[in-house]
Amino acid sequence: MTPLQPGSTIGILGGGQLGRMLALAAARLGFDVAILTPEEDSPAGRVAARTLVADYTDEAALAELAKICGVVTYEFENVPAAAVRKLTALGCPVAPGERALAVAQDRVQEKSFLNSVGVPTVAFASAEDPEGVRAAAAKVGAPALMKTRREGYDGKGQRWVEHVADAPRIFEELGGRPVILEAPAAFVRELSVIAARGRNGETAVYPLAENHHESGILRRSLAPARAPAAVGAQAERIAVQILTKLDYVGVVGVELFELEDGRLLVNEIAPRVHNTGHWTQDGCEVDQFEQHIRAVAGWPLGPTHPIAEVDMLNLLGPEAHGWARLAAEPETRIHLYGKREAKPGRKMGHVNRVRPLPGRR
Amino acid sequence: MTPLQPGSTIGILGGGQLGRMLALAAARLGFDVAILTPEEDSPAGRVAARTLVADYTDEAALAELAKICGVVTYEFENVPAAAVRKLTALGCPVAPGERALAVAQDRVQEKSFLNSVGVPTVAFASAEDPEGVRAAAAKVGAPALMKTRREGYDGKGQRWVEHVADAPRIFEELGGRPVILEAPAAFVRELSVIAARGRNGETAVYPLAENHHESGILRRSLAPARAPAAVGAQAERIAVQILTKLDYVGVVGVELFELEDGRLLVNEIAPRVHNTGHWTQDGCEVDQFEQHIRAVAGWPLGPTHPIAEVDMLNLLGPEAHGWARLAAEPETRIHLYGKREAKPGRKMGHVNRVRPLPGRR
Repeated sequence: MTPLQPGSTIGILGGGQLGRMLALAAARLGFDVAILTPEEDSPAGRVAARTLVADYTDEAALAELAKICGVVTYEFENVPAAAVRKLTALGCPVAPGERALAVAQDRVQEKSFLNSVGVPTVAFASAEDPEGVRAAAAKVGAPALMKTRREGYDGKGQRWVEHVADAPRIFEELGGRPVILEAPAAFVRELSVIAARGRNGETAVYPLAENHHESGILRRSLAPARAPAAVGAQAERIAVQILTKLDYVGVVGVELFELEDGRLLVNEIAPRVHNTGHWTQDGCEVDQFEQHIRAVAGWPLGPTHPIAEVDMLNLLGPEAHGWARLAAEPETRIHLYGKREAKPGRKMGHVNRVRPLPGRR
Repeated sequence: MTPLQPGSTIGILGGGQLGRMLALAAARLGFDVAILTPEEDSPAGRVAARTLVADYTDEAALAELAKICGVVTYEFENVPAAAVRKLTALGCPVAPGERALAVAQDRVQEKSFLNSVGVPTVAFASAEDPEGVRAAAAKVGAPALMKTRREGYDGKGQRWVEHVADAPRIFEELGGRPVILEAPAAFVRELSVIAARGRNGETAVYPLAENHHESGILRRSLAPARAPAAVGAQAERIAVQILTKLDYVGVVGVELFELEDGRLLVNEIAPRVHNTGHWTQDGCEVDQFEQHIRAVAGWPLGPTHPIAEVDMLNLLGPEAHGWARLAAEPETRIHLYGKREAKPGRKMGHVNRVRPLPGRR
């Protein structure tokens, strides 16, 4: 693909905050944006040149998107594979492609892929029926984390199995759908690395972020994380390995467990811009959103070195009502998503609290 | 006015690049944007939640804007005063207000206001007919710069008068409209200062930019300009004086002449975000666009200290076709406006070339 010319239209599947911030980044580079989302009045639709309100598999909507877009991307990994296949069949490039999506949509495929390319994860086993669940639980042992193979995010669709004997019951409670059983990781810290790969194969890796979750939802990211150089180098190797082996185009978010001995395990890969990369908006010259647009548009990647230390805090539900107090903090950069209803736990926005880099104070 | 709540709609009169960049900044803070512009398919309209395509004085469009917007602002100083009056009469706050607009729309009022509040300008005289022009030219002497009192930008609507006797002819060539005659300034440098004033009267001033024009159009801005502290302090006093005396709300651009002895004269004030402030997008934590939105929305102002040294270069007409080369420069941040036609001299975009601040390398 020759680099996509400014003035072209970039399509985004999904109308949430990630789509919105991608759309803003695309506009800065002179692109038009078309959003496909089933949601009326979506956060992303309100900043896009064009919004198609339809199901992701709506044939007419996909045909229209393929007609007007130079490239299509997505803001979440549970976009139907059929939509991506349809767009590709219509001659419209989609990035990241089908392979990345397939791997990210299925937790068993994901871990199998990672292990197959030498990237370590926790031990795991898969199961599709009560019989298989018993065998998988016996293999992985207890406690173990049972997750549906597909879907589920922010801690939804997963349960701890405290005793092997409980596994079949929990399997039924999760809907009797195919599951993965994961051994617990004895991690000391949750880290993540955001990285990008361009159409020409070049890669760019941001510094590590240190992440804190509450009730399965990201609460804070601190970046660049204070970490030994060897840990950073390990994360970079892992990110580049994933990007390269998937022939990936775009930004990927890789969630990591840091073990006591400094080794990293991959917890999960998100084939998209990632909440733990929001710090780059105020901590880097080119943030993850512009980087993703650059990559999918076939542009050269931008720099990833940090220019500030950032403490990113998600604003969940009614916390967003604290905007006036936050706006008065000189070190606080505010990012709000334009969501109409502040339901509890809903990601309404985030703030990046910015400090000079250590040694630059 | 209580601070405007995220989710509210901010109206912008004008659909060009300044409106576009204001709209992107407003979206980041969680606002919806409505654009009023006579232009179909405008740069700002393509990133706004709502676009009203109509004349600025269209009664129905203004009524609709007043109905949906918590505040209205504008991206250029030649918006009809009648539109602002109408919106105000409908109970919709407009910022900056009528006074700032009146002063900025008339070069004689502008200089008279400045002098009346102790801010120095070049010597000037006004005229409305050939008789008056002769008298004005005799008073100011030659060479002098003749400009129409109203309208004209980027060097349009102005001519040098080399000999006093030529003045009446040039007056006719400029259309026989009311003019101002300005004495030349023996300046060593063109500078500008971007500043903001909030609804509560607080002010915030960005560092000086050093500006270079070609054929009357801004070509480059370097910021923060290397200048003695006394010059910076003088610019800050001037900016605050203007903001305060106009009871101004929003961002103002103040163009300055630096004389050999370090004194500053004001050349022009723009009651809006300003091309010489584009460096703040990559040189400050809160750029002039977000600062303007914060001010008109009644939010606290953000910090204005520099975090990088920036060399801003306008991309005029076909120069924007060089985007691929520019995108490959690691130090270059690209901002394109989504204009469809790269007519010669047309502002199509700009780049900010970013360097660490002196002493931070």
